[in-house]
Amino acid sequence: MSKQALHIIKIGGNVVDDEATLHEFLLKLAARKEAFILVHGGGKIATNISQSLGISTQMVDGRRITDGQTLDVVVMVYAGLINKKIVARLQANGKNAIGLSGADANMIPARKREHAAIDYGFVGDFNAAEINVGALQSFIDKGLLPVIAPITHDGKGQLLNTNADTIASGIAVALSAVYETSLYYCFEKKGVLSNPENEYSVIEQLNRTEYETLKSKQVIHAGMIPKLDNAFNALDNGVQQVIILHAKQINDAHAGTRLVE
Amino acid sequence: MSKQALHIIKIGGNVVDDEATLHEFLLKLAARKEAFILVHGGGKIATNISQSLGISTQMVDGRRITDGQTLDVVVMVYAGLINKKIVARLQANGKNAIGLSGADANMIPARKREHAAIDYGFVGDFNAAEINVGALQSFIDKGLLPVIAPITHDGKGQLLNTNADTIASGIAVALSAVYETSLYYCFEKKGVLSNPENEYSVIEQLNRTEYETLKSKQVIHAGMIPKLDNAFNALDNGVQQVIILHAKQINDAHAGTRLVE
Repeated sequence: MSKQALHIIKIGGNVVDDEATLHEFLLKLAARKEAFILVHGGGKIATNISQSLGISTQMVDGRRITDGQTLDVVVMVYAGLINKKIVARLQANGKNAIGLSGADANMIPARKREHAAIDYGFVGDFNAAEINVGALQSFIDKGLLPVIAPITHDGKGQLLNTNADTIASGIAVALSAVYETSLYYCFEKKGVLSNPENEYSVIEQLNRTEYETLKSKQVIHAGMIPKLDNAFNALDNGVQQVIILHAKQINDAHAGTRLVE
Repeated sequence: MSKQALHIIKIGGNVVDDEATLHEFLLKLAARKEAFILVHGGGKIATNISQSLGISTQMVDGRRITDGQTLDVVVMVYAGLINKKIVARLQANGKNAIGLSGADANMIPARKREHAAIDYGFVGDFNAAEINVGALQSFIDKGLLPVIAPITHDGKGQLLNTNADTIASGIAVALSAVYETSLYYCFEKKGVLSNPENEYSVIEQLNRTEYETLKSKQVIHAGMIPKLDNAFNALDNGVQQVIILHAKQINDAHAGTRLVE
């Protein structure tokens, strides 16, 4: 018997930060027929609230350094404000959403990142193999739509901040054991661009060799590198397809960049 | 067949505000054998964060007036920070907690409060009969421990702020259809006191007639009145027992004030 299709859709800060953009996106999601899981990032709201509270944000390699105060803010904003706003809006759109962090139902056990040179603070790393597939499956079987905030925990009472792209990839990999999973990374561009200056230069298909070439030429750089590493990692580990596209195009079958082996 | 026992335990700001008190309480909860649901209030953290963000808090009759900015803060703090800290801590204590607001899984449909004289803002009222009993039951059946933040939604995309005592009472009433429910209100006193000046003057049993008498004598006043109204309402609507006690005494069988008909 073929597995049921399940889409894992990740949205970033650019969708979450603007209420009108978010509403439009969530209306599009409500029109989809296939079961899906939504993973959301944080965006500028956490940074703005940190600033208002007088907490300074440190970044290293595009990753937030998460001290205790910053952790409180990201837990509040990601697992609280953003997550519940999305859930309420999806409910209004007729989807029975349930907001979850990785601590809820022990969904994503993680551990504090160990790094020889940099202390990232309360940042969590996890193995896809440890994700609680049974819990997610039971929610989906009951017709619930999991909306996942990028917060994990270490099982010893400590919440941890985890990259949302990595969570989406990990969930897609873990659930590929029981579903035919597709992973969608929605962001503010129409796909991976062959010319960063030209928004229409979308690469329709990208394989790992081409990716390495574009990376060495610095056509692909900065924040796109961890995103594509997560994306290829998913493809290598059981995920059926990975598509990187503009959030506005989520329901367009041929939009964006499709990763291939 | 007799119904399975289910305890609905509500903790207020005094437990939530202090990390050491909260940890001690959650360790006690972990030692309990019966299935339970935890409902938590907010406390001073939301007020402190509002102040830090320059948002003023208005209170009328002990209830917060919830404007848009205040709603964002209570959603962040209640459904985000406090809820996830409790979940992570219960996970560490061996309980498979899942944090939920009333929007998640459409658990508590509500509507914005209509009041002739006062605009309470984004405050939600609900009927116990509309609580999604099936969703809660399915979580409990799976061995999950629901941890509920006092946020509801109107089904049209609007989150709402709802009194935690009322949520605990409503859930106990709704679930009394399928469980033998007991409702525990944990707070900073040893029970209902016959002499507010003497913390040891705990009334062991209190019926509604005695309650009305004590209210008319102003022995019971202010914040205790809505709490006891919620408590007697639960007792009148199918809840087996209601106990008001100090959080430290949650596992003491004979502690606190037991409400009787």
